[in-house]
Order: sequence, then structure tokens, then C-alpha cells
Amino acid sequence: MFITLEGPEGSGKTTAIKYAVKKLEEMGYEIVQTREPGGTPISEQIRDIILSKNNTEMDGRTEALLYAASRRQHLVEKIWPAIKEGKIVICDRYLDSSLAYQGYARGLGEENVLNINKFATEDTMPDLTILFDIDPEIGMERIKENSTREVNRLDLEQIEFHKTVRNAFLSISKEYPERYVVIDASRPQEEVEKEVLDIILKRL
Amino acid sequence: MFITLEGPEGSGKTTAIKYAVKKLEEMGYEIVQTREPGGTPISEQIRDIILSKNNTEMDGRTEALLYAASRRQHLVEKIWPAIKEGKIVICDRYLDSSLAYQGYARGLGEENVLNINKFATEDTMPDLTILFDIDPEIGMERIKENSTREVNRLDLEQIEFHKTVRNAFLSISKEYPERYVVIDASRPQEEVEKEVLDIILKRL
Repeated sequence: MFITLEGPEGSGKTTAIKYAVKKLEEMGYEIVQTREPGGTPISEQIRDIILSKNNTEMDGRTEALLYAASRRQHLVEKIWPAIKEGKIVICDRYLDSSLAYQGYARGLGEENVLNINKFATEDTMPDLTILFDIDPEIGMERIKENSTREVNRLDLEQIEFHKTVRNAFLSISKEYPERYVVIDASRPQEEVEKEVLDIILKRL
Repeated sequence: MFITLEGPEGSGKTTAIKYAVKKLEEMGYEIVQTREPGGTPISEQIRDIILSKNNTEMDGRTEALLYAASRRQHLVEKIWPAIKEGKIVICDRYLDSSLAYQGYARGLGEENVLNINKFATEDTMPDLTILFDIDPEIGMERIKENSTREVNRLDLEQIEFHKTVRNAFLSISKEYPERYVVIDASRPQEEVEKEVLDIILKRL
């Protein structure tokens, strides 16, 4: 089983995933918890290039290809082997993030970005995708309040960019209704955590 | 004008390009000499990941996507601006290297690799490509004799791999006869250098 969590920064994905993993493991499920774009040494090296504050000259298509490269390596080394062993893989961000950020928000086109990702993933799509939907201004406030996490290059983008990303995710969720569940991530963290766990349990 | 040099390691591209650039500059041409996959800070960071001896787990599709990402950034920051200014761009390796190495030799398929590179380059193809054709065993001998250049991960591949690459380049040259000139790179360096210069001058 392959589950992905999508949604903007500050939407509480990281906290919610921790809670769900803890509960599922207590029930005896074997979980592999991972994140995009990192997860393997090669993918992490690629992630460092993408997120470096010094790489301000990075072109949108370069960024999209780097995300696809990182995703590929992550699939080969970590996701595919875990799925083969019958484990539940829960991945923080996957292909839909590229469609939303590069395809829509950077204007490269959803179809173009999907094509390079089909090459990268050989059409491996999640069985379930949970979208953490939240107003970007609330999301950014949460990031600023969270002193343990450093602000990265993508955080510095204008709020308009993040609004476009939000609409992109909502649009993508309608294209793939069979695997998408959209949740209201502006509610109290406890409620969100429980809903995420419920959604996963229903699919198991 | 956009010129690319293709061919295996040890085929003498680097030396021949130096000679041609020197002579063309003496004639008053403005030349930008560059190489694949590097040439800009971001592209060089990507090159470091591709060529690192520690990254033995790298999947063929990851490698192909990284080359395409590096190529994109190189185009945007260096090749396109120089072509716009009317300069002659001479690039050591370009898209055809990906077709030969990843498409043919790694078995990913020429069409698949061409597709991600069309995304990367927005169909920017060279006006002239010079293929340095040489028996891979002669090429590898030349690398071993050259003490100034470190042996990298690709050099360590089996000789069979390099034979496949040679045949791939010959096959690609027949697909694009309008821009390809194949030269016999096993001849003495001086002859090769002069032929390269002649070929370029005929196209100017």
C-alpha cells in the first residue's frame, strides 16, 4: 500500500504523519515513513541543490527535472522494496507536488511535468493521497511560529505563489478522485491527526 | 551558431577543441567554449552527484534526469545568451551523449531519453555535431596514459558498454545526417585537429 500526503508548507503534514504512524504501528502494521524529495543519500544530495538559498539562478525546468531525479532514486531504493515486502509506505510529498509547484505555479504545464515524471516513476501512482488543504496565509504564520524549522528558499516565495499552489492541488484532487481525500487542515491539530488516521484505516 | 562535439572518453575532443578555438579566435570569431554536463555553478553541482564514485546506487533513469537538469541550466545561463549575442558556441557533449549512454547503452530507450531532453532543451538542437569516432580500446588506453586526468565512475564501466556507446553514436549520426560529421579520431592528433577546424570553417 502506497500513501502520499500533499499540501503546502505549514499545513501540519509532518505532525499528522507522526501520529498516524505511531497508532498504526501499535496496531501491528509495518510502516515505512518517508518524505519527498529526500530519503536516500543520492536523493538528499539532489534535495540540497534544489533548496540551497544560493541557487537563485535555478530555472523552473531544471527544478522540475531535479525533483523527478530525486523521486526516481527514492522509488528505486526505498519505496518499491518496501511495497514489495508488503509494508505500508507513507510518503510526505510525491509526484502531485511537482504538478502543483512546477506544472501550475511555475507555469511549466501540468502535462509537461507529468510526462517527465512518468519517465521517473514508470507510472507508479499512490493508492491513497491525503491533501492537507489550508489558506496559505495561515500556513505561513504557522511556519514563522515554528522555531525548530529553518525558512528555506521556497518559503520566501510570494503569498500569491502559494495561493496558486493551493488552487492547483484542489484542481489535481478533482482529476484523481479515486485516490484523493481532501481534509480541512486549518482545524485543531488533534482533529486533523484523528481524521488522517481514520482515512488510512478505512483503506486498509 | 551552436556546435557540439560528441564521442567517447579518450577520443581527443578536449585537445581538438582547444586548437580549433585558438585558430578561430585568431581569425576574429567570438567563441564560447563549454562542456557538458557542467559550465554553471548549478550544473557543476549536478555533475558532482553524477560522477561521484560513492554514488554506486544511482539508477539509470536518475542519471538521465540529472543530465537533462544540468543541460537545461547550462542552456539557460550560458548557451542561449551566447547564441543571442551572435557568438559561436562550441560545446563538449550535449543531448546526443544522453541518447547514446542512457538511451542505448543503459537500455532506457532512445525515444524515452529524447522526450525528457525535449522538455529540458525546448528543442534546441546543434547546427553542427562532430563525432569523434574511435575504437573504445584505443580510447581507454589514451585515458590511462593521461596522468593529468582522474579516472571517474564512467571510465570504470566495462569495455562492452563503451562498444555499445560507439555503435549508438554511429547510429545517431545516421538519424541526423544534416548536422552530423563523423571523423576518424584514431589518426594522429594533428590531423584530427586540422580536420575539426576545417569542418567548422566550412559551416561558418
